[in-house]
Amino acid sequence: MRFVVVAGTTRTARIDGISAAGAAPALTTHTPSADLEIVEYGDVVAAPVVPVSPAGCPTPAVVTRAVAERADVEALFVDGGLAAPTAAPTVDVGAEPGGDVRDADPVPSAPAAFERARDLGGALPDDELVIGETIPGGTTTALGVLTALGERATVSSSLAENPMARKRTVVEEALAASDLAPGEAAGEPLTAVRRVGDPVLATVAGLVAGATDAGTAVTLAGGTQLATAAALVRHWGVDAPLSLATTAYVAGDESADLADLAADLDVELTVTDPHFEAGDHPALAAYARGEAKEGVGMGGALALAERAGVDVRAVRERVVALADRLQAAASPDQ
Amino acid sequence: MRFVVVAGTTRTARIDGISAAGAAPALTTHTPSADLEIVEYGDVVAAPVVPVSPAGCPTPAVVTRAVAERADVEALFVDGGLAAPTAAPTVDVGAEPGGDVRDADPVPSAPAAFERARDLGGALPDDELVIGETIPGGTTTALGVLTALGERATVSSSLAENPMARKRTVVEEALAASDLAPGEAAGEPLTAVRRVGDPVLATVAGLVAGATDAGTAVTLAGGTQLATAAALVRHWGVDAPLSLATTAYVAGDESADLADLAADLDVELTVTDPHFEAGDHPALAAYARGEAKEGVGMGGALALAERAGVDVRAVRERVVALADRLQAAASPDQ
Repeated sequence: MRFVVVAGTTRTARIDGISAAGAAPALTTHTPSADLEIVEYGDVVAAPVVPVSPAGCPTPAVVTRAVAERADVEALFVDGGLAAPTAAPTVDVGAEPGGDVRDADPVPSAPAAFERARDLGGALPDDELVIGETIPGGTTTALGVLTALGERATVSSSLAENPMARKRTVVEEALAASDLAPGEAAGEPLTAVRRVGDPVLATVAGLVAGATDAGTAVTLAGGTQLATAAALVRHWGVDAPLSLATTAYVAGDESADLADLAADLDVELTVTDPHFEAGDHPALAAYARGEAKEGVGMGGALALAERAGVDVRAVRERVVALADRLQAAASPDQ
Repeated sequence: MRFVVVAGTTRTARIDGISAAGAAPALTTHTPSADLEIVEYGDVVAAPVVPVSPAGCPTPAVVTRAVAERADVEALFVDGGLAAPTAAPTVDVGAEPGGDVRDADPVPSAPAAFERARDLGGALPDDELVIGETIPGGTTTALGVLTALGERATVSSSLAENPMARKRTVVEEALAASDLAPGEAAGEPLTAVRRVGDPVLATVAGLVAGATDAGTAVTLAGGTQLATAAALVRHWGVDAPLSLATTAYVAGDESADLADLAADLDVELTVTDPHFEAGDHPALAAYARGEAKEGVGMGGALALAERAGVDVRAVRERVVALADRLQAAASPDQ
């Protein structure tokens, strides 16, 4: 088993009000680079920002890191369009940072990244891949793709209150800019992801297509964004079994409707609840009230911890220690 | 402790007769990419070549991989100027593939790569770095750097018979093209490595300078190329303790004079003998007769195995299994 995180960025993330992945929209460029460093090293190493939301919620990378330490998980990072340097090692598949979906052709690198990621997914020697993502603004681009494909168009959010109206407006503008009607890209996943999506979705879809083609089992580690990657590969013609492992926070998000989306796509859904409400710590409380919810493979990592027999309390303890370290780095004067 | 491998390429490696790192000079471009895949995955994954020398000697990457498996070593790869894709994850520090040292300015990316590698070396959270390299033709560029710095100008070889006369001729042409006399770059390591060196040496030197500055212990894992990286940081003004861990094959290479070079540079030398002559296998026999000798951190990996109490027979067994797998991939019809 190998735990793959695909990391990238778009200009879409700069749109006000759609993402909590970073202290401010302009800083979200660095969030995926910092997330990979946290999973690899347990701390931000070279990235100039510490991904803690304005509400004090640390990036879900700390949860994935906590599980990786406790369950000895082997991680692999794929550059799905990073726009800022990272000290974490990444595989290059030619994905470039995405533009603003309200432009006509925001992800021109999508088809090439899909192809090279497909080669990689087929070449990796593992019998199972667990694949997560980190890309700010990713639920908005996922909503764009689901709408263009004609699938159930609901997504979750890293904010406690999902700004669905804002996202729908962005997606309407995106479809108009690309001269696409809802459902018009059905059966044309590369059109959907290139015109109204993001480079991470293209890369994840490529990995899944290549891996399943090679007989490798795939678990998508995340919520509605990973379900959207599943939609892309279903529209590409992949009918292999697919699993989606997410958190209770996404599964409990009534604005998202993940269970129905997964059922539509014939994807088996696993939900893991880390019971962060049971811990007495501001970082855990932020998750418990619905901040962040998912990301950087958090749901898949929690499922792996359960599979490996790691006590959820041990994971929570480690999350708290990592969150404290990040919080100290984010507020060095306190 | 983290085991770092810096991988890169130059046009210098294309000069006939100087390297055994690949079946043919034109294929050496892919050797470092394949080496990283072997250390990461235990096999060539995406690289289109299998690094086995014409004489049947598998890349020393199999030895490093064997130790990594047996001693649970955490590896990190840095792109020191790769020219071909790899499915292994790498950190980018801006190093570009090097040109032919017989040109005037073959490594223009050296100063920038040195600086960014220095930042990385200072930022990594480890208390110890063990640093190796993979770059075909690397002893020739090392000879160029040692000559330009005015240090003892002897290097080892991946060939059983060291083509020193050929290398000296190349270095003479290189110095002439850069209008440098032997010793003229003393105290100017960035000039030496840019004009007559290679991007891997620049990157390794940067990592060492940054790490030692941050109080991180450094073991250079290799032979005369890594000693040359030590020379670069000594000329940069670093007086921190440095260790060099190499194989008995390099230490026994009378054409190389590694012990005196290490003494000149105040570098503590550790020599590990894997006793490959005790194993009955063509791959081990190739090493025993002086093929390859070092590379991809082999000497450092063997020292780590010893430190971790891993039986050298267990390493040999695993080397044989990996070599058989590579040989089967290299000669699929047999």
